[in-house]
Amino acid sequence: MLTLDKVYQASYVLKDVIRKTPLTPSPKLSSKCNLYLKAENLQVTGSFKVRGAGYMISQLTDEEKARGVIACSAGNHAQGVALASAKYGIKATICLPDGAPISKVEATKSYGAEVVMVPGVYDDAYNHALKLRDENGYTFVHPFDDENVIAGQATIGLEILKERNDIDAVVVPIGGGGLISGVAFAIKTLAPHIKVYGVQAAGAPSMYNSIKDGKIERLASVSTIADGIAVKEPGVNTFDYCSKFVDEIVTVTEDEISSAILAMIEQHKMIAEGAGAVAVAAVMFNKLPIENKNVVCVVSGGNIDVTILSRVIERGLLTSGRTCNLCIELMDKPGQLQLVSTIIANHGGNVISVHHERASEKMDINGCFLRIVLETRNYEHINIIENALRDAGFRLV
Amino acid sequence: MLTLDKVYQASYVLKDVIRKTPLTPSPKLSSKCNLYLKAENLQVTGSFKVRGAGYMISQLTDEEKARGVIACSAGNHAQGVALASAKYGIKATICLPDGAPISKVEATKSYGAEVVMVPGVYDDAYNHALKLRDENGYTFVHPFDDENVIAGQATIGLEILKERNDIDAVVVPIGGGGLISGVAFAIKTLAPHIKVYGVQAAGAPSMYNSIKDGKIERLASVSTIADGIAVKEPGVNTFDYCSKFVDEIVTVTEDEISSAILAMIEQHKMIAEGAGAVAVAAVMFNKLPIENKNVVCVVSGGNIDVTILSRVIERGLLTSGRTCNLCIELMDKPGQLQLVSTIIANHGGNVISVHHERASEKMDINGCFLRIVLETRNYEHINIIENALRDAGFRLV
Repeated sequence: MLTLDKVYQASYVLKDVIRKTPLTPSPKLSSKCNLYLKAENLQVTGSFKVRGAGYMISQLTDEEKARGVIACSAGNHAQGVALASAKYGIKATICLPDGAPISKVEATKSYGAEVVMVPGVYDDAYNHALKLRDENGYTFVHPFDDENVIAGQATIGLEILKERNDIDAVVVPIGGGGLISGVAFAIKTLAPHIKVYGVQAAGAPSMYNSIKDGKIERLASVSTIADGIAVKEPGVNTFDYCSKFVDEIVTVTEDEISSAILAMIEQHKMIAEGAGAVAVAAVMFNKLPIENKNVVCVVSGGNIDVTILSRVIERGLLTSGRTCNLCIELMDKPGQLQLVSTIIANHGGNVISVHHERASEKMDINGCFLRIVLETRNYEHINIIENALRDAGFRLV
Repeated sequence: MLTLDKVYQASYVLKDVIRKTPLTPSPKLSSKCNLYLKAENLQVTGSFKVRGAGYMISQLTDEEKARGVIACSAGNHAQGVALASAKYGIKATICLPDGAPISKVEATKSYGAEVVMVPGVYDDAYNHALKLRDENGYTFVHPFDDENVIAGQATIGLEILKERNDIDAVVVPIGGGGLISGVAFAIKTLAPHIKVYGVQAAGAPSMYNSIKDGKIERLASVSTIADGIAVKEPGVNTFDYCSKFVDEIVTVTEDEISSAILAMIEQHKMIAEGAGAVAVAAVMFNKLPIENKNVVCVVSGGNIDVTILSRVIERGLLTSGRTCNLCIELMDKPGQLQLVSTIIANHGGNVISVHHERASEKMDINGCFLRIVLETRNYEHINIIENALRDAGFRLV
């Protein structure tokens, strides 16, 4: 079992490796509690993972350091191990499944690690990493289920306690459970009155299920945009820490995660990845008993692929009425498109795309569908435009 | 003329109004210099404007405070004045042109200001604000051309100097010139060896032109996504400060601004608005003589409309080869779409949208165009997919 000694040592050792991230007040994300964000998305490598990897690597023997380390990850852990190894001048090899996003591969390489692309999925890359470990005497850096890794993540708990002495609750994302194990250990050991809540994606509730049933369970599959916490099975150690130190675990849906990402962008000018946004989502959507409390959400990382970010924004714009899809039935004769676009322009709508569709079994032989995507201000604005079109005799489908 | 006294006083007065923003190392945005970002996008209200407005308002007489303040702005200044007034318990009225984005209107209201929507454009709102000032005895808070406002912005210069003593150059966005006037005054007065560079959008080069020609000039029109610095004419005071304290002013294009916004998202997990990204753009695209120097870019704000953000990301994905538009000429017969989609899938492309187009004067009577939008890894990946399609006999248009 971890000791506070170790956590304080980790904090000292990591001083020159990590960035001290801000604890930012967030009055706009929740009116129900006094919310603060621990912004680990602004950490070097864009996530907290460098803490655990950094401390774990610092504790290797000289002989182990000389042989080098190996890890397997398509994401934040890879970059954490790569950067920490570079800081300590140690050779790092990272196995990645060959479908990994190019941006993450490039980021890992940029820190100086040797990247091995392994055909297949995560499990194939993992097995290949173990094989390379056995062949070359590398030390395997586990992404979460290791005492020194957990001690590194625990330094986030120390930083929160150092910054404010009025905190009532800390809300932490859970994937494999390394982050929350460390944070909960530090918080509950130093300030046991503070509640520690865990949050998982509803599409990957491995720790949630395991704690509920009192034993480690493996999910057959996981599906969530929060890829950083899409873990099928908790660790043996992290399951113990969660059983002992975590007050409650809740889950959030994909739409709740997306809304939280968009809210972080609009209110805080910060990018959170899906995993990084789940704690905020749990607060925004009232999943926790934190009314009028001083609450810290750990925003664990910001490494979201921009293609996914773009989809999250698009969806957020749709669900908040700031874009809208109209489908208008037209008679297929000259002047109709002009009339529609005049009505839309007169009411302040901004046309993004137009698609004119003729053949459909649902329409009159002379009819056609006009599919228009519009930028709008809100739902009220959409109603005004729709009503103006109806008043002019158009049928909206 | 400003004095250091005033700037130090502003720094003291603003202590409880503003957030001390981080000066973040940015090794990945430029390999040519040691870059740091002064992240005023993480400031309360999402921009530096609260500094100038806050100090200006703090210096009003009790009688002026009792009557209240008025301002005119569709953006950052409105939110700065609204928040600062709320902090000092003063009534604030903000005139906004009625086409202002709903998100900015809501943000301004959320700080407790009274918002007056004025039909027309900025100039109409400005005139209405002056009328309300005369009728009600409000004090008008100028967005940039006021000594106390400039003193407030100058506190950013102090913070940079306090944080590091090895800085060689500071790069600052210019709209009306209030921010750079303050920063340049503080820097050049305390550390005259440090270079101060200004950056404008090429679509709104009012200060750039004015300094070049040695006299204040008014632009007939401005056009840029950096709406926060789309100012037609410099201030009388700010023109003087820039003439005296700024070493050089350069401009950046819209594509350069977009690339800088995207790079800030990917490398720093932070949102910059267009105006906030111009200094970074100037460094990224080598507009300044800063090789091997220690350079600070002021990221002035992050209040970008998400619809615009979404377009910036889309454009950035296209220009970096992570989405691509293919137009394929097909014979209009069964099985063709299946063949195309099989080839794309086999090469790891991810289809986002498909559009099938028949009538075009450019094609054979039996032909059609298939327009496909794909998620890809990079230009190399696009080439592989295009070549595979050509090898299967398809013509790309």
